[in-house]
Formats: sequence, structure tokens, C-alpha cells
Amino acid sequence: SAAFRSSEHQHIRYNPLQDEWVLVSAHRMKRPWQGQVEPLLLKTVPRHDPLNPLCPGATRANGEVNPHYEGTFLFDNDFPALQPDAPNPGPSDHPLFRAEAARGVCKVMCFHPWSDVTLPLMSVPEIRAVIDSWASVTEELGAQYPWVQIFENKGAMMGCSNPHPHCQVWASSFLPDVVQREERSQQSYHSQHGEPLLIEYSRQELLRKERLVLTSEHWLVLVPFWAVWPFQTLLLPRRHVRRLPELTPAERDDLASIMKKLLTKYDNLFETSFPYSMGWHGAPTGSEAGANWDHWQLHAHYYPPLLRSATVRKFMVGYEMLAQAQRDLTPEQAAERLRALPEVHYCLGQK
Amino acid sequence: SAAFRSSEHQHIRYNPLQDEWVLVSAHRMKRPWQGQVEPLLLKTVPRHDPLNPLCPGATRANGEVNPHYEGTFLFDNDFPALQPDAPNPGPSDHPLFRAEAARGVCKVMCFHPWSDVTLPLMSVPEIRAVIDSWASVTEELGAQYPWVQIFENKGAMMGCSNPHPHCQVWASSFLPDVVQREERSQQSYHSQHGEPLLIEYSRQELLRKERLVLTSEHWLVLVPFWAVWPFQTLLLPRRHVRRLPELTPAERDDLASIMKKLLTKYDNLFETSFPYSMGWHGAPTGSEAGANWDHWQLHAHYYPPLLRSATVRKFMVGYEMLAQAQRDLTPEQAAERLRALPEVHYCLGQK
Ligand SMILES: O=P(O)(O)O[C@H]1O[C@H](CO)[C@@H](O)[C@H](O)[C@H]1O
Ligand SMILES: O=P(O)(O)O[C@H]1O[C@H](CO)[C@@H](O)[C@H](O)[C@H]1O
Repeated sequence: SAAFRSSEHQHIRYNPLQDEWVLVSAHRMKRPWQGQVEPLLLKTVPRHDPLNPLCPGATRANGEVNPHYEGTFLFDNDFPALQPDAPNPGPSDHPLFRAEAARGVCKVMCFHPWSDVTLPLMSVPEIRAVIDSWASVTEELGAQYPWVQIFENKGAMMGCSNPHPHCQVWASSFLPDVVQREERSQQSYHSQHGEPLLIEYSRQELLRKERLVLTSEHWLVLVPFWAVWPFQTLLLPRRHVRRLPELTPAERDDLASIMKKLLTKYDNLFETSFPYSMGWHGAPTGSEAGANWDHWQLHAHYYPPLLRSATVRKFMVGYEMLAQAQRDLTPEQAAERLRALPEVHYCLGQK
Repeated sequence: SAAFRSSEHQHIRYNPLQDEWVLVSAHRMKRPWQGQVEPLLLKTVPRHDPLNPLCPGATRANGEVNPHYEGTFLFDNDFPALQPDAPNPGPSDHPLFRAEAARGVCKVMCFHPWSDVTLPLMSVPEIRAVIDSWASVTEELGAQYPWVQIFENKGAMMGCSNPHPHCQVWASSFLPDVVQREERSQQSYHSQHGEPLLIEYSRQELLRKERLVLTSEHWLVLVPFWAVWPFQTLLLPRRHVRRLPELTPAERDDLASIMKKLLTKYDNLFETSFPYSMGWHGAPTGSEAGANWDHWQLHAHYYPPLLRSATVRKFMVGYEMLAQAQRDLTPEQAAERLRALPEVHYCLGQK
């Protein structure tokens, strides 16, 4: 039989961080697409809209008026999924009906006073200010809660309901599901191999090179071997860092610069404001923050839905929901395409 | 502090079948929605389109001509994610880079010769014919493969690229990820409690009643205690049945009838052809079919994306992808709404 080639022969790959498998069927990119096409958002966003509750000076749903902020701006989500004081559901009466208490807070963080910019169009110092705000909110909420989830839903396709550049921060009294998986995997790898899973993984990817997208003095961006979304990436510090607040000023500047490069490549891929969900994972916080979290390595996941163009996305539906994630191009092919893209934004380059 | 009420107080619930947690924040339905609205598909589908490769008599991508079928019609997917003869990726050189062979087949099953019907608009005998075809394809592909995944992606929102009523069947040489989780959970519940997890679960739901949507002589439909999608349901036989081919003629007729009722309620909820992904899970097949699978109970999952109306869906994005699934109404509220809906399709009732 033929020699195995990952770009031609379907196979399954294991995600050791989240203990999951993905089916890689790269030959599937050859099929024609007759399904749903997303609306192309051509309407321009005004720089300032006094009716947009995320803008400086605007009035929010609860009647509060935003300050005329000039950098980032953090406030309580007016419709929080987590509130600080929910009562406890009480003991379960049956092992198949288990409910537990959930407490927390949900915040919104505006990245910039203007509605018509996105991270890749912001300057490196402006992005650096976002990183500093991420570090402070982690510190602030992490004093009380074991988990502080920073995430950005970018683009209407990712359920984002407001074009103003912003992210969310949900802190919780429990370790969320995905985090529990990462905790178990990193813990068990560390106890077996004596070093953090993601440190060894980064070392290997730097040697193998084929999945690297960007490297800098302090950071690397790669398409993980087990990526599920077509152009999914993993952003990691080179040094062993447990949480965002530990980053040095030099590491933060360098992070701002590599984020700008990555997000510019993303926008350039299909010449569109590239939608994604992204978020940070670091060691748990709260009262257990002082425990030994040596097995944890800080990282950010980027999950962008687009597959073929600005309007054709990957649907994670039937087989993926009922059986197993499936991808249509190899992680190596995705990395190669991202690597080849310019680091100057298509909206800014000369024609 | 206040007494706990699940419809007002956020909490987390455990899914013992798939070993996952969901955050339930029912108060969140109160927030206004300003995000993406899906296109309403008002265009009518022609009953027969000679250019649609799923229609009787049409020519498919590979040049084959479909027969003038009158019931269901099963054929090989022209762009399969799984093929029977892929070579093996060979041994892994590192524990963080594990790939394994994947072999299988992908088939498409048309439910009906007409393009302008859907399951809820088909007659009970026509749905019964689909069930018989599901049973035969499970038997046929299950002779060779350990897993036969039957699934239907309905509606453009669920990535379905052809309006003709159909489902897919992907058989694989491996147990997919979600199935491995269900296997582990059911196995361990059975060894601890001496009976199948889903048998005890059904018994409890029949007693508790608040999550039941439909019951019949041989089947029940409920919104599981741990449902993630707003109107997710679980369809189960009352008898202990391991796989589709074991269903008796009476159970198949009754299944056709309860499916018609469920899918009619779904369409009636927002007066639209309700999108969803659904699929069947039964005991593994293939060479291990003869092993002891007493812990398995056959069931179907329905995962519909709509939340508020025919055009506003639930987005499983940032927090959900990075941390934990989150839902905006309780499973009990969803069950109550579904129960209250008529069993006559809104397109067929008198005005
Ligand atoms: O095979 P189809 O219907 O063309 O494709 C659809 O279902 C598949 C199986 O769930 C998914 O992998 C695809 O992303 C989706 O578009
Ligand atoms: O909070 P938002 O932006 O209104 O809502 C969006 O992000 C949330 C967190 O990922 C999701 O639960 C919602 O489904 C989505 O629409």
C-alpha cells in the first residue's frame, strides 16, 4: 500500500492537552461548497456612536454613564451569566442529577475608545495597554476566584453583538470543564516526565518547525499538531510563565508585537476582519494560588471559524457534535499558509 | 440568603453520560439581543430538481446516475472524510505527537424522493422506512466497522449544503471521541450500580416528569438534566435495547410516530423548519459486537441551535469553547415549552 502522507491520507491525532482526538481528512478540501455563505459585513462602523453602550460617554443598560476613557475601560457586564451571590442548589438526591453552586462575576473590557479599530489595527503600545489590563484584572479577580477566564469573541459570526473592540472576563468559583481537562493533562504529564507538557511541546515545535507561524524573542505562535479549527493557533511564552501578571515589561511589549503580527496575518488571509474566539489559560488563582502549579504553562488559544474564504466557514456539526471533531486541511498546511502571509495589514498596505 | 430556584439562580450541572459540566444561567434570557440574525430562508424548494445530485434520476459528481428511487436511497458520499484504505501513519516518535490510522466509509441516505419535504412532513410509514434503512445500514457497515455514526444535519445553519431530506452515515475503524466518553461512563456506572445508566436515568425522568417532552408505549423524549443546547432532547427506548437493528416492528412504528411528533413540535416552536444536528448512539459493532455491551442503551441526541426565534441562535463561542458550555434557560423551562406545543404541524393546521 502507498506510503503515508498526512496531506492525502486521513488519520486521527491526539490532543494531549485536552485529552481529545481529531479526524484529519485533508483530501476533503477538494469538495465543492454549496452550503451556507455568511453575510459579508461591508457597512463601516462609526468611530463614535453615542448610543453604543461600549463607547466613551455613552449610557449603559443600568443607567450608568461611561467615563470619557482614553485607553482600556473595564466595567461590569449588565447581563452577567455569573453573579457573586447565587444560593447553593443543595445536596443532590441522586448520582445522575448533580448540580453545584456557581458564583462569579462577568466584566467587559473595551480595548480602545474608538469603535472602528480592531487589535491588528491598533498600535503596539495600545495593544500593550490591553495586555496590562488583562494582567491587572487577572490579579484583581484572581484574589477571590480560582478561575479568571479572559476571552474575546470577534465578529458577528462568533456571536459578538457589539462591533466596539472589547473582550470579556468571567471569573468563577469553580474550575470550568475545559480547564479541568487541561489541569489533569498537565498535572499527569508533569508527574510522569518531570517538566511541563507545554514547555516540552514548545521545544519540539521549535525543532520541527513545520507548524510554526511566528516566533519572537519571548513568544511563539504555532498551529498545534492537534488543531481542530482550520486556522487555530496556540500562543505561548518561551519562558515558563504560570499566569499573565508574571510577564515582564519586555515580554509584554513583545507579546503586543507578536499579537499584532498574528492578527494582521489572520485579516490578510481572506482580506476580511477575521472572526475568532480567543482566550487565555494560566494556572488557577484564588485561595489555592499559592499551591504548586509548576505543571501549568500560560497560553492563549485562537479559534477562528473560517475555512475557505471570508464567507465560508467550517461547520462543527453532526459528526463533530455526535462523534469527533474533523478538519479539512492539515495543521501543517494551515501553518504554511499563515507563515506566507505579509505582516502588513491589507487595509494599510499600498495598492 | 434566598432559597435556590434553578430558573433564577445560576448553577452548574453534571452530564454523567459524557462526563462534562454545563453552566445554567437562566436569568440571562432577559438580556436584549443585538447580535447576528440568521437569514430567513423563504425561498421554496422545488419538489424535483434534475441538477440536485440527491434527486432521483440526477447525475452525481462521480458521473453515476441515481435510480428513480421511491423510498429511501443510500449511496457513497462523493467527498468522503473516511475512506476504506488509508495507510497507517506509523509509530509516533514522541508522546505529544500521536497519530493513528483511520479507515471507514461515508454514505448519504436520502429519506424521500421529494426535495420539498422534511421528516415532520413525511407520513409515519415513510418515516418507518427511514428507520428500517437506519437499522440495515447499521447492520451492513457494523459487520466490518466498530462504529457506525448515523447523523442528520438539518438546515443551512447546521452546515447542511443540500435541502433534499437526507442524513449521513460515517463508519469508522475507531471509536470516536464522544463515543469513548459515553462508553467509559456507561461502563463504570454499570459496574458500580449493576444496571445501565440510561435505564435508571429514564426511570427517574418518568418519575420526576418535569423534563419529559413526549412519551409513548415504547419511547420517551426528554430534555436532559444536563442539556447544553437550548432545546436539546434525548430520545430513548423504554426497553433495554443496544442497537437499532434490535428494534421490533412495533417499536419501529412507534418510533416513527414519536419522531414525527417531536419534529412537529420543533417546527412549531418558532414556526420555521427547525434546524438541528441529530444522531444515534448504540453499542459498538464490528468484530467486538459479540462482547458484553449490557451497559449500553440505544439513544438519539437532538442538538438544535435556535434560542429565541427562527433567526436568533445560541452561539457556543468564547466562554463555551475556552471554559465551559453555558445555557440561557433551564432544561425544565425548555421541556415545558416543548410540551405545550401542538402536535399538528403549523404548515398543515387550519388558519
Ligand atoms: O458532509 P457535508 O454535509 O457536506 O458537511 C457538513 O457535515 C460534516 C459532518 O458533520 C461537517 O464535517 C461539515 O463541516 C459540514 O459542512
Ligand atoms: O456575552 P455576549 O457577547 O452577549 O454573548 C456571546 O458570548 C457568550 C460567551 O461566550 C455566549 O454565551 C453567548 O452565546 C454569545 O452570544
